[in-house]
Amino acid sequence: MAGGGTEPKEGLTYEGAGVSIEAGEEAVDRIREDAASTHKYFGGKPINAIGGFAFILELPCGTVLGFSTDGVGTKLRTAFISGYHELVGIDLAAMVFNDILVYGFIHGVFLDYISQGVQKPDRTKAIISGMIRGCHMAQFGLGGGEMAELPGFYKEEEYDLAGFGVGILPDRRHLIMGESIVPGMYAYGIASSGLHSNGFSLLWATFGIDFKDPDQAGERLNAHYPELGRTLLEEVSVPTILYRQGILDLNDKYEIAGMANVTGGGLARNPQRILPPGCSVAIKRGSWPIPPIFSLIQKRGNVAQSEMDKTFNNGIGFIVYSPNEIREEGVYKIGQVVEGSGEVIFI
Amino acid sequence: MAGGGTEPKEGLTYEGAGVSIEAGEEAVDRIREDAASTHKYFGGKPINAIGGFAFILELPCGTVLGFSTDGVGTKLRTAFISGYHELVGIDLAAMVFNDILVYGFIHGVFLDYISQGVQKPDRTKAIISGMIRGCHMAQFGLGGGEMAELPGFYKEEEYDLAGFGVGILPDRRHLIMGESIVPGMYAYGIASSGLHSNGFSLLWATFGIDFKDPDQAGERLNAHYPELGRTLLEEVSVPTILYRQGILDLNDKYEIAGMANVTGGGLARNPQRILPPGCSVAIKRGSWPIPPIFSLIQKRGNVAQSEMDKTFNNGIGFIVYSPNEIREEGVYKIGQVVEGSGEVIFI
Repeated sequence: MAGGGTEPKEGLTYEGAGVSIEAGEEAVDRIREDAASTHKYFGGKPINAIGGFAFILELPCGTVLGFSTDGVGTKLRTAFISGYHELVGIDLAAMVFNDILVYGFIHGVFLDYISQGVQKPDRTKAIISGMIRGCHMAQFGLGGGEMAELPGFYKEEEYDLAGFGVGILPDRRHLIMGESIVPGMYAYGIASSGLHSNGFSLLWATFGIDFKDPDQAGERLNAHYPELGRTLLEEVSVPTILYRQGILDLNDKYEIAGMANVTGGGLARNPQRILPPGCSVAIKRGSWPIPPIFSLIQKRGNVAQSEMDKTFNNGIGFIVYSPNEIREEGVYKIGQVVEGSGEVIFI
Repeated sequence: MAGGGTEPKEGLTYEGAGVSIEAGEEAVDRIREDAASTHKYFGGKPINAIGGFAFILELPCGTVLGFSTDGVGTKLRTAFISGYHELVGIDLAAMVFNDILVYGFIHGVFLDYISQGVQKPDRTKAIISGMIRGCHMAQFGLGGGEMAELPGFYKEEEYDLAGFGVGILPDRRHLIMGESIVPGMYAYGIASSGLHSNGFSLLWATFGIDFKDPDQAGERLNAHYPELGRTLLEEVSVPTILYRQGILDLNDKYEIAGMANVTGGGLARNPQRILPPGCSVAIKRGSWPIPPIFSLIQKRGNVAQSEMDKTFNNGIGFIVYSPNEIREEGVYKIGQVVEGSGEVIFI
């Protein structure tokens, strides 16, 4: 693996590839108080602050709801090039459901927003078919959606997607908020299937793919990489894993004190989001296998390790905190909870 | 008013302006059964079929939820030209909340999806500020959102928005599903503030506005129209009305048997959506004042009356069914429920 720990000036960054997480956070910070002024209207009691994996609301009747919204990012371009539109439908569902699964939601309602310049029924059907596959895997019901047609907003072969999920938990005792996590517990990483749906803008920059030139883009995506044992397009056409069944299987045998979804912000900025006050997590490098796509990106783009960490999942798609010794295929003991103030420390 | 009742071949149509509602419906029809296969996962009992103004779910504890998602359509271009981004934030909230209000939901949770090519904190803040204003008017709490940054998907000055609302009603007896509507009841129309957020693609076509040429677009939008008493840009920069308070005020004095939001599909395709089996609604032309913008569009675009009806609200933004004689400013007795099979009949 190349470039680990070094931060060469010429290395590619996510911000350089056009995605500025800080600018987004700035906008949110500036609006936080105004948004809070609406919280009296919820019709229930918020269980966590805005900014968790999902927003949790306890209804007066005791039922708990978990709300999440997400998109697929520029992974969408994979479908534009390949025509495999089911892919991003599954990804959309997975991005939303894995965020809600963190808190223990295993049923609920999904809605989608599909925005196109030109309505193409075959394509729309394929996207929704993918979402439905995701809904089956997460056991959420598709409750509706909006198909927007915005002439001139998108190129004919392009579109955007948003997904909304509401988890429904009849009994608050089944809610997993991570309060029982204590220093000494283990952090287990569950293998990802590759990039999932994060960091694609940096991926495209790394391989110098110019989507304004479809021939060039197609050629570069269809190039075979010995490191991957397949083409780049094949590599990135793997859907995001929906972790519901995997988590239920673990839950049958082990105590799960908390979970985290490795989503936007990568392995550097997600594992700590579920930790209670007074805890950090130490993640041991080399304690899990890095899939070859990540090593390839890092090497080709001369990407600093810190940039890899905050952009990609690096092979770990979901995290489980447990006091138990978990021994299962595809589950790696990647670290341990330590005393601290909510940090991810790579050791 | 020009062109009423005639269907000249050269008249502009919504489909000709790039929006094909039929193609969208075709995609949905082809996926309906597959979608239904996920409904066993809802974690509650569906009260209506997919395709209502909102999807209604009764939880085991008795609380009822109403789900809706929507966008702003090409009204977004108004904000791109004027820089008044609060506008479309309010519109987004209004589009979502008016759909949920139909069933009597007056509190709940809102989430948003903002998709940009480049994250611009000032612009994002303005959009969210508009949503927050809408949340206050509808008394929904802002529970979270996603700010997507998709380099190359949107021009720098453009973006797309999706909103998602979940109404929360602790007592099913307050749910208004329209079952008590019977022939003989009156249909009352509540005045819109103009186009609201529907039919903008046809509006742009009518005025020959070419957004690829910002100078031309700016010039045409800033033209003053004596019929409007203002510029076209001023006319279309009026936010969609949020009807919550208006409906609560009516509800204090009158019996409300059902409601309908005049959204995509216009006055021809929305009033009947809340009617129980065996009912149609006869709407009497000329029974309410048509705001000048609609007459202007019809005249300039030589738009057939049937096309006007299925594209625009034509001055009626929301409909209330009641057995009472309602006499309030801005509320018009526009028709009556008759025996029939769910049609809107213009008389």
